Amino acid sequence: MDKTRLEAFSDGVIAVAITLLVIDLRVPEPAHDASLAHRLGEQWPNFAAYVVSFLTIGVIWVNHHATLRRLRAVDRSILFLNLALLMTIVLLPFTTALMARYLLEDSGRTLAAAIYGGSLLLMSAVFLTMNWHLLRNRTHLLHADISPAYRRTVLSRNLIGVAPYLLATAAAFVSPYLTLAISAAVAVYFVLPGTTPDTPGEA
Amino acid sequence: MDKTRLEAFSDGVIAVAITLLVIDLRVPEPAHDASLAHRLGEQWPNFAAYVVSFLTIGVIWVNHHATLRRLRAVDRSILFLNLALLMTIVLLPFTTALMARYLLEDSGRTLAAAIYGGSLLLMSAVFLTMNWHLLRNRTHLLHADISPAYRRTVLSRNLIGVAPYLLATAAAFVSPYLTLAISAAVAVYFVLPGTTPDTPGEA
Amino acid sequence: MDKTRLEAFSDGVIAVAITLLVIDLRVPEPAHDASLAHRLGEQWPNFAAYVVSFLTIGVIWVNHHATLRRLRAVDRSILFLNLALLMTIVLLPFTTALMARYLLEDSGRTLAAAIYGGSLLLMSAVFLTMNWHLLRNRTHLLHADISPAYRRTVLSRNLIGVAPYLLATAAAFVSPYLTLAISAAVAVYFVLPGTTPDTPGEA
Amino acid sequence: MDKTRLEAFSDGVIAVAITLLVIDLRVPEPAHDASLAHRLGEQWPNFAAYVVSFLTIGVIWVNHHATLRRLRAVDRSILFLNLALLMTIVLLPFTTALMARYLLEDSGRTLAAAIYGGSLLLMSAVFLTMNWHLLRNRTHLLHADISPAYRRTVLSRNLIGVAPYLLATAAAFVSPYLTLAISAAVAVYFVLPGTTPDTPGEA
Repeated sequence: MDKTRLEAFSDGVIAVAITLLVIDLRVPEPAHDASLAHRLGEQWPNFAAYVVSFLTIGVIWVNHHATLRRLRAVDRSILFLNLALLMTIVLLPFTTALMARYLLEDSGRTLAAAIYGGSLLLMSAVFLTMNWHLLRNRTHLLHADISPAYRRTVLSRNLIGVAPYLLATAAAFVSPYLTLAISAAVAVYFVLPGTTPDTPGEA
Repeated sequence: MDKTRLEAFSDGVIAVAITLLVIDLRVPEPAHDASLAHRLGEQWPNFAAYVVSFLTIGVIWVNHHATLRRLRAVDRSILFLNLALLMTIVLLPFTTALMARYLLEDSGRTLAAAIYGGSLLLMSAVFLTMNWHLLRNRTHLLHADISPAYRRTVLSRNLIGVAPYLLATAAAFVSPYLTLAISAAVAVYFVLPGTTPDTPGEA
Repeated sequence: MDKTRLEAFSDGVIAVAITLLVIDLRVPEPAHDASLAHRLGEQWPNFAAYVVSFLTIGVIWVNHHATLRRLRAVDRSILFLNLALLMTIVLLPFTTALMARYLLEDSGRTLAAAIYGGSLLLMSAVFLTMNWHLLRNRTHLLHADISPAYRRTVLSRNLIGVAPYLLATAAAFVSPYLTLAISAAVAVYFVLPGTTPDTPGEA
Repeated sequence: MDKTRLEAFSDGVIAVAITLLVIDLRVPEPAHDASLAHRLGEQWPNFAAYVVSFLTIGVIWVNHHATLRRLRAVDRSILFLNLALLMTIVLLPFTTALMARYLLEDSGRTLAAAIYGGSLLLMSAVFLTMNWHLLRNRTHLLHADISPAYRRTVLSRNLIGVAPYLLATAAAFVSPYLTLAISAAVAVYFVLPGTTPDTPGEA
C-alpha cells in the first residue's frame, strides 16, 4: 500500500488541528468597565497556550514526517496506529482551550492542567507505540539502509520523549503554571537549532 | 480524467470533517455549584461519541482509499457519486453532536440516536452504491488485474457492511446506548488486526 | 510556474469551505415546549440549503478541475484570478447560512435570498472572467490540443452558466423559495448524468 | 529532506486559515427594531476586513510559493522558520475579527487596529527572516541558477515589503481606518498586474 495518501491525509488533519487553535482566541465584547487592553491582558493564558500548542503540534508534524520517511510502504496496522495518533492530536485544541480557560480560576485549574499534560502524554505514548511497532514488527516495510543500531537510537529517543510530558502532567498537582512551562520548554527545546541531530533521527 | 485531484479533494474534505469533531468537545464555564470534574463527567457522551465517530470516519477513509486504488481513472459519474459520499461524511460531525447532546435527556434521545445511526447507514449505503457502480458499470476504469470473483467479494463485503448500521438505527428504538455501542463495535471490529484480510479488499 | 501547488491550495480551500457548511446545522437545545422532531423540522431550510450549497460547491470544484486541466502552466494573473474565485467560494457558507436563517422570517427573507443568489452569481461571473482570460489572453499556457472551436464552446457554456444565477437572484424579489429552487435545479442539472458531455468540457 | 510535504502542510494550514476568515461574517439574528439591510450594513467593517485579509493571505501564499520554489531541499532550520511563519498567518483570522469588531467603537479601536497592523508586520518580519536565512545561510539548498545578484534583489524587496505594515501599525494611532486602508492598498498593489515582475521574484 502506497504511503502518499497516508501522508496527505495526516498532513490535512494536522493542518486543520493546528489552525483550529486560533478559534480559542476570542474577541472580547466591548465593555464600559474595562479597556480592551485589560480584557486582552486577561486572556494571556490563551495566547501563551496558543504558542505552546502550535509549536508542539508543529514538532509532532516534523516527527511524523521523519517517521514516515523511514518507511517504503504502509500496511493496515500502520494505518490504524496512525489514526490513533491523529485522534490524540485532534484532541489538543480542546485540551489547550480547557487549560487556558482554567489557568487563572481558583477551582478546576489543577484538573485542567493535568488533562492538558495528560493529552500531550497520551499523544507521545501513541507516537512511541507507533514507532515501536514499525521498528520492531514491521522492519520489512523500512528502507533498507536503516540499521538495527539506528532503530534502537530512534526508539530510545522516543522513549525519552515521553518523560517530560509525564513530568508536565504530574506537575499540575504542584502548579498548573509549571505544566505550561514544562510543555513550553519541550517545544522550544525541539525547535532550537543544534540540540538534536539534523538528520537522520527525530527532530 | 486523472484521479489524483479527486483523492486530494476527498482527503481534504474527510480530514476537515474528522477534525471538526473536536468542536463538539466544549470547555465548561467555571461554576460554583459543580466541580470541573463533575461537569466534564456529564459530557461523557461527547467524549464517547468523539472516539466512535473519529474511528468510523477513519475506517471510511481507509475504505475510500481502497476503492480508489482499484481505479485507473475516474469519470463524471464517479466524481458525483464521490461527492454524494462526501456529503454524507460531512454530516457526521452534526449527527454525532446531536446524538451526544440528547443521550442523557429524557426527551429526544430516541430520535437523536436514530438520526445518528441513520447517518451512518446513509453513508454506508452511498458507499455501497458507489462501489456497485464502479464494479458493475465501470469495469473499464478498473485496474486490469481485478477479477470478476474479486469484484463479487468486494460487493458482498460492502453489502454486509450496511447491515450493522441498519441494526444500529433500529436499536435506537430500544435504547440509544445500544446505537452507540453497535457503532463503536463496528469501528473497533474494522480497526482490530486480523479480522479482515489486509490486502486486497476493504479494510 | 508549476500548477501543482495552485491545485493543491485550491483543493484545500474548497474542501474547507464545503465542510464548513455543516457548522450551520445546529443541535437544538432541549426544550420542554417542543419536541426534538419539531425543532429539527423548523430547521428544514438549513438542511435544504446544506444540500444545495454542497452540490453547488462540488460542481464548482469539478469545473475548476476541468479548467486547470486545460492549462500547461500558470502565471501571476491566473494565480490572482483564482484567488478572487476562491474568495467568492469561501463566502458561500456565510450566504447559505443567511438565506437559511431568514427563509421562514417575514422580514429580511427577500434580501437574504437575493444575497444568496447574488453570491452564486458573483462566483459564476468570476469563474467566467477567469476562463475568458485563460482562453482569450493566455492561449500560450493552454495544452496544444485545445482548438479555437473548443475554446469558443467552453466560453459559451460558461456564459450560459451565469444566466440561471441571474435568474435566481432576481427571483428573490418574487419568492425566496424560488431562489432556493432555481439554485437546487442548477446543481441537480449539472450532477445528472448525460445532461452535459462527459469530456471534454465543463462538468 | 524533501520539500513536498512541507509545501503540502503549509498549503493546508494557509488554506484553512484563509477559509476561517468567513467565520467572522455573522448572520444577524432577526430583530424588530432594525431591518436586515441595516444590520448587515453595520457589519461593513467585517466585510471590508474579510476582503483585505483574504487578499493578504493570498499574497502571502503566492510569496511562500515563490520562496519554496527557489529551494532544492529543506533542513530543520527551514522547517521551524516555516512553522513560525505559519503561526503568524494563523493569527490573522483573530486579529482581523478584533479589528473589525472595534473599528466603529469609541473605545479600543486604536489598540485593535494597531494589533491588526502589528500582526501583519510580525508576519512580514518572519517572512523576511526566513528569506534572509535561506538566501544568506542556506545557499547550498538553493537551485543552482540563483545568482548572488538575484538573491540581493529578493532580500531588498522583502525588506521593503515590511515597511508598509510598519506604517499601517503606526497609522492606527492616527486613525484605525488608515490602518485598514494601507493594508488594503498593499494587498491591491501586489494583486494588480504589471506592478511587480512576473517571474522570477516575489509576487
